[in-house]
Amino acid sequence: MGRYAIGLDFGTESGRAILVDVETGKEIATAVHRYANGVIDETLPDSDIRLKRESALQDPNDYIETVKAVIPAVLRESGVKAEEVIGIGVDFTSCTILPTLRDGTPLCKVERFKDNPHAWVKLWKHHASQPEADRINQLTAERNERFMRRYSRISSEWMFPKILEILNDSPEIYEAAERILEAGDWIVWMLTGREVRSACNAGYKAMWSPDEGYPSKEFFRALHPMMENVVEEKLSAPVLPPGRRAGGITERMAELTGLKPGTSVAVCTIDAHAGVPGSSVVEPYKMVMVMGTSTCHMMMSEDEVIVEGVRGVVKDGIVEGYYGHEAGQAAVGDIFAWFIENCVPADYRSEAERRGVDLHTLLAMKSSAQRPGESGLLALDWWNGCRFLEDANLSGLILGMSLSTKPEEIYRALIEATAYGTNMIIEAFAKESVPVEELYACGGLTKNEMLMQIYADVTGKEIKIARTEYASALGAAILGALAAGRENGGYDDIKEAASKMAGVRSETYRPDAENHRIYRDLYGEYIKLHEYFSQINHCMKRLKGKSRG
Amino acid sequence: MGRYAIGLDFGTESGRAILVDVETGKEIATAVHRYANGVIDETLPDSDIRLKRESALQDPNDYIETVKAVIPAVLRESGVKAEEVIGIGVDFTSCTILPTLRDGTPLCKVERFKDNPHAWVKLWKHHASQPEADRINQLTAERNERFMRRYSRISSEWMFPKILEILNDSPEIYEAAERILEAGDWIVWMLTGREVRSACNAGYKAMWSPDEGYPSKEFFRALHPMMENVVEEKLSAPVLPPGRRAGGITERMAELTGLKPGTSVAVCTIDAHAGVPGSSVVEPYKMVMVMGTSTCHMMMSEDEVIVEGVRGVVKDGIVEGYYGHEAGQAAVGDIFAWFIENCVPADYRSEAERRGVDLHTLLAMKSSAQRPGESGLLALDWWNGCRFLEDANLSGLILGMSLSTKPEEIYRALIEATAYGTNMIIEAFAKESVPVEELYACGGLTKNEMLMQIYADVTGKEIKIARTEYASALGAAILGALAAGRENGGYDDIKEAASKMAGVRSETYRPDAENHRIYRDLYGEYIKLHEYFSQINHCMKRLKGKSRG
Repeated sequence: MGRYAIGLDFGTESGRAILVDVETGKEIATAVHRYANGVIDETLPDSDIRLKRESALQDPNDYIETVKAVIPAVLRESGVKAEEVIGIGVDFTSCTILPTLRDGTPLCKVERFKDNPHAWVKLWKHHASQPEADRINQLTAERNERFMRRYSRISSEWMFPKILEILNDSPEIYEAAERILEAGDWIVWMLTGREVRSACNAGYKAMWSPDEGYPSKEFFRALHPMMENVVEEKLSAPVLPPGRRAGGITERMAELTGLKPGTSVAVCTIDAHAGVPGSSVVEPYKMVMVMGTSTCHMMMSEDEVIVEGVRGVVKDGIVEGYYGHEAGQAAVGDIFAWFIENCVPADYRSEAERRGVDLHTLLAMKSSAQRPGESGLLALDWWNGCRFLEDANLSGLILGMSLSTKPEEIYRALIEATAYGTNMIIEAFAKESVPVEELYACGGLTKNEMLMQIYADVTGKEIKIARTEYASALGAAILGALAAGRENGGYDDIKEAASKMAGVRSETYRPDAENHRIYRDLYGEYIKLHEYFSQINHCMKRLKGKSRG
Repeated sequence: MGRYAIGLDFGTESGRAILVDVETGKEIATAVHRYANGVIDETLPDSDIRLKRESALQDPNDYIETVKAVIPAVLRESGVKAEEVIGIGVDFTSCTILPTLRDGTPLCKVERFKDNPHAWVKLWKHHASQPEADRINQLTAERNERFMRRYSRISSEWMFPKILEILNDSPEIYEAAERILEAGDWIVWMLTGREVRSACNAGYKAMWSPDEGYPSKEFFRALHPMMENVVEEKLSAPVLPPGRRAGGITERMAELTGLKPGTSVAVCTIDAHAGVPGSSVVEPYKMVMVMGTSTCHMMMSEDEVIVEGVRGVVKDGIVEGYYGHEAGQAAVGDIFAWFIENCVPADYRSEAERRGVDLHTLLAMKSSAQRPGESGLLALDWWNGCRFLEDANLSGLILGMSLSTKPEEIYRALIEATAYGTNMIIEAFAKESVPVEELYACGGLTKNEMLMQIYADVTGKEIKIARTEYASALGAAILGALAAGRENGGYDDIKEAASKMAGVRSETYRPDAENHRIYRDLYGEYIKLHEYFSQINHCMKRLKGKSRG
């Protein structure tokens, strides 16, 4: 009888299951389910209720439908029997929250609330709560809150801005919400019948820590009189590190999915964070770059160290026992996609079609022979603001254009800019004596060989690439095997689990010494511009102000 | 019997004649001849002699062929008789020079020199003489040459760098050259049999002035011992203001063109400078923007005033009796052409085809409704360096991009950047109490209505547009009528000539007060970046250095 784990990976548009061999990590089957209601950003489903600007909602039923679709699908595809599945892990976008009744029923499924947008899931990228985030940042500064040492700045994407937005806009939903929780925690609750909270989500998105808990009653009272007891009233539940066992599959869920009742389910984790064990990294001082539309830079340390540009440092936040750091760049793949969509001329498109390659490949072909610096171009990778500085008002820049500048040169300069941004994060860690001893990458962008080589050349570091295409889902499966434990055919030690189930490709990207030398100089130029436009000349902010009228 | 004048306009790729009514300036006929050998930049014609990098040569025979083609063509097309043509004016690219024998025979037509590139015409944009320009600038600085007060910096496009290059590379051509002269002066010599030099060309491109003449023997000796007597040996000839009579058409030229022997020919002028009377401007304090691939800003003053950013100030250089200032931007239309060629996506091209418009028009349609500042973008118009600072090492910049930035927004930002560059020139004049009291424009870009309105909004000035599409050729024709003089049916006074023969359209571009207010702020941001990247952070120069390896 085999031993298998399932990783459930809930993304922005769809959810995925992968079924893997617990002994080897081999991916036996995978299935994807696209959310029927996707991202809800204009009107509520089957309704003409219009949403506020920058709203991004979801329907929690789509998560249940995902579970019902993808788990039976991977069992069917693999021929694996229910009793061979020893554990399930869940990773989820975050901070994606919903208000529910005490039994977990989402308020949006309660008849009298279904037309209220605040009863629905607020997706991570719901930015309508920016005013609330501003207010919270102001208050933490005024009160000089100690927990803020662990965070660079509270984002509108996080939990309390979203809760405060509910309260400000719709006190009746706030009052009716007997629970407010991360959708990842909610789906684990639905699978197991037990409400627990993830230390990862709570730590990175709700200013919680194992030693200090959530912010104080005084803080919440100062924020809004009605929020004084928000923790006791709506949040309190055991907070456990990812990989702990949340509970077993319920009878009802066993029926819906074809799994055995009691199958272990791990405490959920955030998708990017799951990519760390999914890339085989479970120890400190190894940075994992989770590279997609944006890039998350995940690192662990043995002590609580505060590093510039890090969004949050959370004990047990990635792997139990270590401090997990999350830094990042707000747009990476998104910048290249913007360029492909908006800036590549028609004859390049024809050429790509003729050669049977996509535009990314064509541009890489045309620019990969260039020496670093040959184009004379330099860019700042701030198309979606600068997360290192937590400043959404910064914007993109390219300089060095001449009348003979070609599109592939600009494309390459944009890639280089994102590599400089990553290098800045690596140097910020090094400055605080948190050395990046090894560098790993996972995610969609790792397919772009030119890009990966540029990252190696810019950072001067060898880059190891995760073996799996689905590092987050594999990380979730590893946590599932950990939740099952050795006695159930899984693992008690995440180091053993990760070394068996995850790995990196044998080919790595090694820096070229001469290219690195040139890139050191160019990086110096990047730093100068970085400082100038963030600290000295605030023209980007003023221009954004004008553009809003 | 009618009275007509012909303007001969020699451009980079072709030459044009227009035949106009001397009484009204009405354009009766026009003809174009494309140079058979065009711009020679790789190998000499019918030869495998390879040229140095950044060479740009021409074949003087193409100019003769142009005369033989276009003058008969306009006579034929109009039905005007030879005796009705009272005068001819010539405008020419500059500084475009050639070495000849004493009788005007180009050295490249002498058998033993024909394979030597230095025997051919060096076109204005022949930049291979940059090292010589650098040397001359160094020397003028060392010697603190008084004539340099009139020039911002000596360009590789000017006369003495090109002559020194001949001498450095090919002393035998230098020695064999009994004359070295502007092609514009040469064609006038060929038409009239009389060698005269234009005060316009000599003043703007050869550091000559009516009061001080050419640079001193001491200067030339310091530059190169063999050049001590370059003026007496190769240049000396009467230097006359544009519009003076150089001579009459020779018997031989009469035969070749169908004109009457003795028909008056004016001293030549530079093409951009001819655009000034061609736009009806013959008085001080009226700026004419000659707008094409680059823009020249031409202004006259009553006194010799030194204005920052002005390439040269020349007495009698535009209209006799005034000091002519030439400022400019090294790339304007060229930047927009670069953008169209390299940065507009395929679906825009399809849309333009579907709507039956060109891409410039489509982009203007998409962006003309935008408020100033709405895109949040700002650019520096330095794709071909910055002529205001005479710094070819500066390069283009765009900032303010977000993931929702559209191509038409970038296109508009590029137009705005060139308008800011023009505004900087206008303000430099104002600072020295040379107010731009009226603003005129001529040239190809005046067809772009959105662009012209942006220029009006940015400068806060009403812009008058030259009535003719061929302002330089019309300017040349006006000078032809002036050369003929009243006694031959022309004019003695250029004011009278211009007021009769040239004019502006009744519709002008008037600034919108609210847009101007916003653009004042954006211009302030442009100025900050201008200063930072030209004076404080020399990264553009360093990047160019790297790109050359």
